Amino acid sequence: MNQIKCIVAGPRGKMGSEALRMIEKDEQLTLTGCIDRKYDGMNVKDVDGLPKLDAPIFTDTEVCLQEVEADVLIDLTTPEFGYKHTKLALEHNVRPVVGTTGFSDEQLEELRSLAAEKQLGAVIAPNFAIGAVLMMQFSKWAAKHFPDVEIIEKHHDQKLDAPSGTAVKTAQLIQEERNTHKQGHENEKETIAGARGADFDGMRIHSLRLPGLVAHQEVVFGNLGETLTIKHDSHHRESFMSGVKLAATEVMKLDVLVYGLEHLLD
Amino acid sequence: MNQIKCIVAGPRGKMGSEALRMIEKDEQLTLTGCIDRKYDGMNVKDVDGLPKLDAPIFTDTEVCLQEVEADVLIDLTTPEFGYKHTKLALEHNVRPVVGTTGFSDEQLEELRSLAAEKQLGAVIAPNFAIGAVLMMQFSKWAAKHFPDVEIIEKHHDQKLDAPSGTAVKTAQLIQEERNTHKQGHENEKETIAGARGADFDGMRIHSLRLPGLVAHQEVVFGNLGETLTIKHDSHHRESFMSGVKLAATEVMKLDVLVYGLEHLLD
Amino acid sequence: MNQIKCIVAGPRGKMGSEALRMIEKDEQLTLTGCIDRKYDGMNVKDVDGLPKLDAPIFTDTEVCLQEVEADVLIDLTTPEFGYKHTKLALEHNVRPVVGTTGFSDEQLEELRSLAAEKQLGAVIAPNFAIGAVLMMQFSKWAAKHFPDVEIIEKHHDQKLDAPSGTAVKTAQLIQEERNTHKQGHENEKETIAGARGADFDGMRIHSLRLPGLVAHQEVVFGNLGETLTIKHDSHHRESFMSGVKLAATEVMKLDVLVYGLEHLLD
Amino acid sequence: MNQIKCIVAGPRGKMGSEALRMIEKDEQLTLTGCIDRKYDGMNVKDVDGLPKLDAPIFTDTEVCLQEVEADVLIDLTTPEFGYKHTKLALEHNVRPVVGTTGFSDEQLEELRSLAAEKQLGAVIAPNFAIGAVLMMQFSKWAAKHFPDVEIIEKHHDQKLDAPSGTAVKTAQLIQEERNTHKQGHENEKETIAGARGADFDGMRIHSLRLPGLVAHQEVVFGNLGETLTIKHDSHHRESFMSGVKLAATEVMKLDVLVYGLEHLLD
Repeated sequence: MNQIKCIVAGPRGKMGSEALRMIEKDEQLTLTGCIDRKYDGMNVKDVDGLPKLDAPIFTDTEVCLQEVEADVLIDLTTPEFGYKHTKLALEHNVRPVVGTTGFSDEQLEELRSLAAEKQLGAVIAPNFAIGAVLMMQFSKWAAKHFPDVEIIEKHHDQKLDAPSGTAVKTAQLIQEERNTHKQGHENEKETIAGARGADFDGMRIHSLRLPGLVAHQEVVFGNLGETLTIKHDSHHRESFMSGVKLAATEVMKLDVLVYGLEHLLD
Repeated sequence: MNQIKCIVAGPRGKMGSEALRMIEKDEQLTLTGCIDRKYDGMNVKDVDGLPKLDAPIFTDTEVCLQEVEADVLIDLTTPEFGYKHTKLALEHNVRPVVGTTGFSDEQLEELRSLAAEKQLGAVIAPNFAIGAVLMMQFSKWAAKHFPDVEIIEKHHDQKLDAPSGTAVKTAQLIQEERNTHKQGHENEKETIAGARGADFDGMRIHSLRLPGLVAHQEVVFGNLGETLTIKHDSHHRESFMSGVKLAATEVMKLDVLVYGLEHLLD
Repeated sequence: MNQIKCIVAGPRGKMGSEALRMIEKDEQLTLTGCIDRKYDGMNVKDVDGLPKLDAPIFTDTEVCLQEVEADVLIDLTTPEFGYKHTKLALEHNVRPVVGTTGFSDEQLEELRSLAAEKQLGAVIAPNFAIGAVLMMQFSKWAAKHFPDVEIIEKHHDQKLDAPSGTAVKTAQLIQEERNTHKQGHENEKETIAGARGADFDGMRIHSLRLPGLVAHQEVVFGNLGETLTIKHDSHHRESFMSGVKLAATEVMKLDVLVYGLEHLLD
Repeated sequence: MNQIKCIVAGPRGKMGSEALRMIEKDEQLTLTGCIDRKYDGMNVKDVDGLPKLDAPIFTDTEVCLQEVEADVLIDLTTPEFGYKHTKLALEHNVRPVVGTTGFSDEQLEELRSLAAEKQLGAVIAPNFAIGAVLMMQFSKWAAKHFPDVEIIEKHHDQKLDAPSGTAVKTAQLIQEERNTHKQGHENEKETIAGARGADFDGMRIHSLRLPGLVAHQEVVFGNLGETLTIKHDSHHRESFMSGVKLAATEVMKLDVLVYGLEHLLD
């Protein structure tokens, strides 16, 4: 098993610190450097709250990429920094693994060309939760055969938006496979408004918000005499780290940019 | 075990025919007569589609009550007939067991007085499904301690109304125990209308309609770090017959009118 | 939409009669004949309990295939008859759709050769429930990424065997993708024997049997911080008919024998 | 709302530290002291990892009870210390709230007498999770009407024992209401040993162990045509704190010892 040397950008963020903990336990990944807005010149192991990993911190990405030996740059920052980091990484022959939803089509195209030109793998993923990505892929597949479907998503009551981004994304994927049609009885009537949920292309999405919930989604397909349900329950962001690990190992085998974890899951 | 002699009103209806099948298999209940709009003078066992039970059919309720020896009149007809049958039964010293949601308060009061005067048991139940009634009672109890609750009900897509009657009834029972408050984040926002479901006194109710579903309800209570869920799944109307059987045996021990199966479930 | 002319073998069986009801409602499938052990020379519409479809009944399969114009032979009988029917159908240029688990490898090979030689489509499926087949395919896929998995299957309490055939089949498919390993803590201890369920290659299978259940299975995958669950609930054998319909239409596009509905579900 | 002054014993334990965080946020409870094996003479707010609450720490329980003004002693230590603390608290006219499963019948009897004599409330609870206690109470109630029941409990794969203590306790409560009988078909057969789970008085208990699970239990009751399921999901030990809070407020209204949170939940 070849070691994979990693730089992590954003090591003190929620996802970044989780990534450091993952690398600490992992046998194949090694941390060789960090990119942070603070602590330039310090070592990770000396920063309060970070794992005891021996790696230098840089505030300047370019300097980091020049001075540190690395195979992969794991970026868990913001779309703005992510774009800049991805570009610089490719230019320095380091393969980027980036978790973000915020790149524009133009940015993606530019990065795709750069990766192709350099013949370097790159993975950009809006969602690193393998379980959630599989749920969406299974749902898309099931929709070919079961065109009647509703989505229930349940989150803690501090969440502001309903439906959740994952629910809408799931519905969009289903939509690609399903002929638009209004579900339910043609004369159905809501005696209290909203009972039948959000209407997305004829499908219905229902959002629960309660204390004690974390992040859950069920996709329920109905057919004569049977139902098929695909359910994902997530209670800790360490669940994203299986996806980061997968991306960091698979990116080594790629020579193009891949957008979306689903393309690594076949 | 004392035999209980029963008259069934409405033997060809969905519930009535189910009741006949239940009595056929039951060791304690015996059918001694039926009240129907048709087939006066015929025997149950000679009517196509009815079980092979030996009991005469009457179109005139009063004649039936005079001629047939009976402990209990099981009425599974309509509110209009149900009221008339209940009254006549009590007058003939037969204990009524009636499945209906349609009696007015005045009618109930009159029947209650009549039962008290006669010192005869009577059971009137809007819902004979023991499982559904327990779900509602548990929900009412849980709401004392967990004031944050949402209801998901799932039915086949031929159902016209949303939310279901049981969901609304459950919410009403919860409301009795729970201080009204709006759930979810105070700034929560529906990006697609209806996502957060029907608002009932601050609680949310979500109605799914799909082929392959029958009749299902989940009541989900949320509290810090935990959720408690009470779920009822019903796939056949024979599930109502446990309640009819319970009412028919318990009514023999009563000397007043009881409204609602929950009072027989302690 | 081209009409597809169908012969049904076993029209009075549980599955066969369901198939007739499906054909009765379907716009594309037409019944042109039936093969039965009884009622030779009668018409389906004259047999008590069968749908009012106009088609002759034959006890001799060969005569039926000679006299009736047909594209597809739907066989829902027994392995023994199924084999014979499949062979005869291919010889008469009729495409067989057969629901059975009972063919030997030799029989399958022989039928596969015959279909290839005749360049005729044929579908042999141990399970026509699309929902169940999708559940199994999704489980196989998920197991690549989530090697820790347990299966819960729930059936009515008249079922004799535990685990169910579908649960074992699901475990076998998962086994193909998963490195054998014992799950659970290495020092785990059953304080009551059987608590941890059936051990299948290190995975665990749990079988519930209760009145009120019909046929249900959940496949639960666990990963750090998340679980992914694939659940199938079936409450009526009409659920098999979507698969029979799919097979009957897809077989028209095939020129080889296909074993297993999953190959028609991509 | 009267303030309730609390001493917490075991403030650095998993439960004790959770209790301190709960008190920190609570408007009615105030921390006036802590009993710990270490840090005698220090203040809570000066101990690393504890909340910024201003209260002195004592290693000697008796000194603490003499010097600190308190209504309630919340003990979240071990059975041995718990017993000693409970006794001392009552002797000093402080009401004990104790979370333990480990007291002997003799100890309980002694403490019960002492509380009665002092006319002081006391609450001893093997389980402070209100959700779990309600699940058990509902299960006991449901078993009166639905004698066929199976339990599924799901925990993380670091748990050693199967079935869980809560599952066994639930089964014991159900047993009190249910006539012993073997469930399932009388000729049922396990084709893989353990498939039907652990046999507890004829009921079956199934234990799942997977990464990504926390602590979950479902109690499934089956009846003709229906099932009733009571499900508890817990993902954080803060869920116990609602029970501690309830006990600390209810104990002020009591003048006897109460064993088990269920007696405070009516």
